Amino acid sequence: RINSARLWDSLMEMALIGPGVAGGCNRQTLTDADGEGRHLFKRWCEAAGMTMGVDTMGNMFASRPGTDPDALPVYMGSHLDTQPTGGKYDGVLGVLGALEVVRTINDMGLKTRHPIVVTNWTNEEGARFAPAMLASGVFAGIHTQDYAYDRTDPEGKRFGDELARIGWVGDEVVGARKMKAMFELHIEQGPILEAEGKSIGVVTHGQGLWWLEITLTGKDAHTGSTPMAMRVNAGLGMARITERVHQIAMSHQPNAVGAVGQVFVHPNSRNVIPGKVVFTVDIRSPEQAKLDAMRAEVERAAHAVAAELGLGCSIEPVGHFDPVTFDPELVGIVRASAEKLGYTHMDIVSGAGHDACWINRVAPTTMVMCPCVDGLSHNEAEEISPEWAAAGTDVLLHAVLQVAEV
Amino acid sequence: RINSARLWDSLMEMALIGPGVAGGCNRQTLTDADGEGRHLFKRWCEAAGMTMGVDTMGNMFASRPGTDPDALPVYMGSHLDTQPTGGKYDGVLGVLGALEVVRTINDMGLKTRHPIVVTNWTNEEGARFAPAMLASGVFAGIHTQDYAYDRTDPEGKRFGDELARIGWVGDEVVGARKMKAMFELHIEQGPILEAEGKSIGVVTHGQGLWWLEITLTGKDAHTGSTPMAMRVNAGLGMARITERVHQIAMSHQPNAVGAVGQVFVHPNSRNVIPGKVVFTVDIRSPEQAKLDAMRAEVERAAHAVAAELGLGCSIEPVGHFDPVTFDPELVGIVRASAEKLGYTHMDIVSGAGHDACWINRVAPTTMVMCPCVDGLSHNEAEEISPEWAAAGTDVLLHAVLQVAEV
Ligand SMILES: NC(=O)NCCC(=O)O
Ligand SMILES: NC(=O)NCCC(=O)O
Repeated sequence: RINSARLWDSLMEMALIGPGVAGGCNRQTLTDADGEGRHLFKRWCEAAGMTMGVDTMGNMFASRPGTDPDALPVYMGSHLDTQPTGGKYDGVLGVLGALEVVRTINDMGLKTRHPIVVTNWTNEEGARFAPAMLASGVFAGIHTQDYAYDRTDPEGKRFGDELARIGWVGDEVVGARKMKAMFELHIEQGPILEAEGKSIGVVTHGQGLWWLEITLTGKDAHTGSTPMAMRVNAGLGMARITERVHQIAMSHQPNAVGAVGQVFVHPNSRNVIPGKVVFTVDIRSPEQAKLDAMRAEVERAAHAVAAELGLGCSIEPVGHFDPVTFDPELVGIVRASAEKLGYTHMDIVSGAGHDACWINRVAPTTMVMCPCVDGLSHNEAEEISPEWAAAGTDVLLHAVLQVAEV
Repeated sequence: RINSARLWDSLMEMALIGPGVAGGCNRQTLTDADGEGRHLFKRWCEAAGMTMGVDTMGNMFASRPGTDPDALPVYMGSHLDTQPTGGKYDGVLGVLGALEVVRTINDMGLKTRHPIVVTNWTNEEGARFAPAMLASGVFAGIHTQDYAYDRTDPEGKRFGDELARIGWVGDEVVGARKMKAMFELHIEQGPILEAEGKSIGVVTHGQGLWWLEITLTGKDAHTGSTPMAMRVNAGLGMARITERVHQIAMSHQPNAVGAVGQVFVHPNSRNVIPGKVVFTVDIRSPEQAKLDAMRAEVERAAHAVAAELGLGCSIEPVGHFDPVTFDPELVGIVRASAEKLGYTHMDIVSGAGHDACWINRVAPTTMVMCPCVDGLSHNEAEEISPEWAAAGTDVLLHAVLQVAEV
């Protein structure tokens, strides 16, 4: 079993970097705080005897050698970046849990045939630069590096420039590494495990997603002196589409969600009818057919609302992944590890996107989930118990040791 | 008649200060650009032989002496501040038109019994600091100066600090000046005069307004892994209330308008269900009963939407004025001036709020309106013709000369 206190101490120490305003974290990707977090992680990895490699997307790979020079490494990891008002565990548990697995193996003096690699993927959250899971997506060949470098944040700063600014452009070619397997430990970010009283989620699938950035164009005009009939109100269009997204998701229950998380109103003045609104629709389902249907319905609804209000409407997909089926053999190993360790467990579908969803395209992959309080995530109040963190990390340890061959 | 070319040149020169991004202006109140605009206006006034006084709200008063030391001055003016994406004429025409009136009187070598004062009121727009017409409101005793100084912009900067920063805290006590009358020339900002083919609007009334700042509080949560039933989505609440504001305004037609112009979504991340939204409802009517009814309906609707979604809801009025009836005698003088000059005219109700609406509480007041293209205002594309500007300023000249007694 892993050292629960050491894991917790590391989680708490990392949470001091890029602190939030309400007990959580704001360590958004490619900020100074992200750079500082990376340095701390690197120091910890080197102290645990690992060697750090960094690729040109800033993905970090800390390696512990195996005994067989020809054996492919077993990977485990997640991400250290957070939402602007994020929690202390989303992603971080997967990275520091993986580090704790290596520390534990070191303590036990174990050798494995396959090398073991602890990974920190760049920009998983997609909060600052859409899409989410950007760097694992480049690694898996979903996006080109040029595409990734050209993503911009709301201030217009380029991903490539910001990566260089914080000094984490490595020299490895992205995606050059071959993997025996990849495991990602992550908090559930939903309420199911806690409600069912289970310590471990055995992740069999991940739901698919579309992010649709909608730009509505109306006409800036005075809120007082412009008659109702003359208004071309992009804000009203955004409101109607936001409601329709909700209804569309509700009409596909169960196994469908939808919401608008980000809205920019222009010029955003109390007495100006909004002439332009840019906002992002997030729709998801584990069922491909539902996901496709919802996308079509949202696009139809957006164009219909725009037509009824006389608005210009353009829709750009800024994030997408299809539903994922994780590697059945690895899923079986995770389930068996939980069983062997005596942890309550259940099969579960990931509601969120994860780096594992992209890596699954290029290597056998699966995840281990642990509960979080009230299913709350992407909130500074995100909370887990040290026992849950330890259980998930124990399962990760056993699954990785089995695949890496002690 | 006034010098139309000189007026137009001054309008164009002022428009170079705080230029917009699309041909208009961004000279928001108490910015460096506002300071620069004030200096130019002061230079012009002094060149026209006037003496500048400034009060502790930054209101500017350029005086041309009268022949009777006991006669109260006749005021005319408007505001030089603009919306973030504002036009070149909204407010500016009223200030520079008044300056042109003095320049014309100087050219003609006329003396008046009453002094004449050209005024620039601080923060009319209310875009940066709510409420609108803030400084004329303090002048009229509607707000205390302490209240005004404590208003903050979206970055949290205080009105009082920003006024001091740009160096325009004057030494006059606000509201100490007594007025014989006050005239405000302004573009209509609506489509009626142009549609009716009239050059002059004789402003008999102004519609009333409420700005209601609504704060909805839900729960930041993950857009993917949070089941629909568990969401407390403040963004959806904002959307529903925005739609209800529209419906409420439509149900009170004619003589009612309503919209949401400003929306701040928190944390405004694509994959976070909004945990908080702060937005401002703008509702207006020239009829007191409708205005009161709409306010009650909007507040009821907001609380009902919040209750149905489980949101916290607080509503703070951040701007208000009742419908205004302008001074019938001055209104008659404006109408007679237009008639005498041979300009087509009609009686009109101001759809926007104006400094004249507050000054009307402490002195006989009215307005002169001229058309604007397509009724468009609070838009960088706001446009008027030099002929319209000249007609309005001619009427202002004649009305003021009559009251100031040549
Ligand atoms: N796990 C997680 O929050 N990932 C961010 C991408 C997503 O929105 O699902
Ligand atoms: N005239 C004008 O645009 N005033 C700003 C206050 C308002 O919104 O009516």
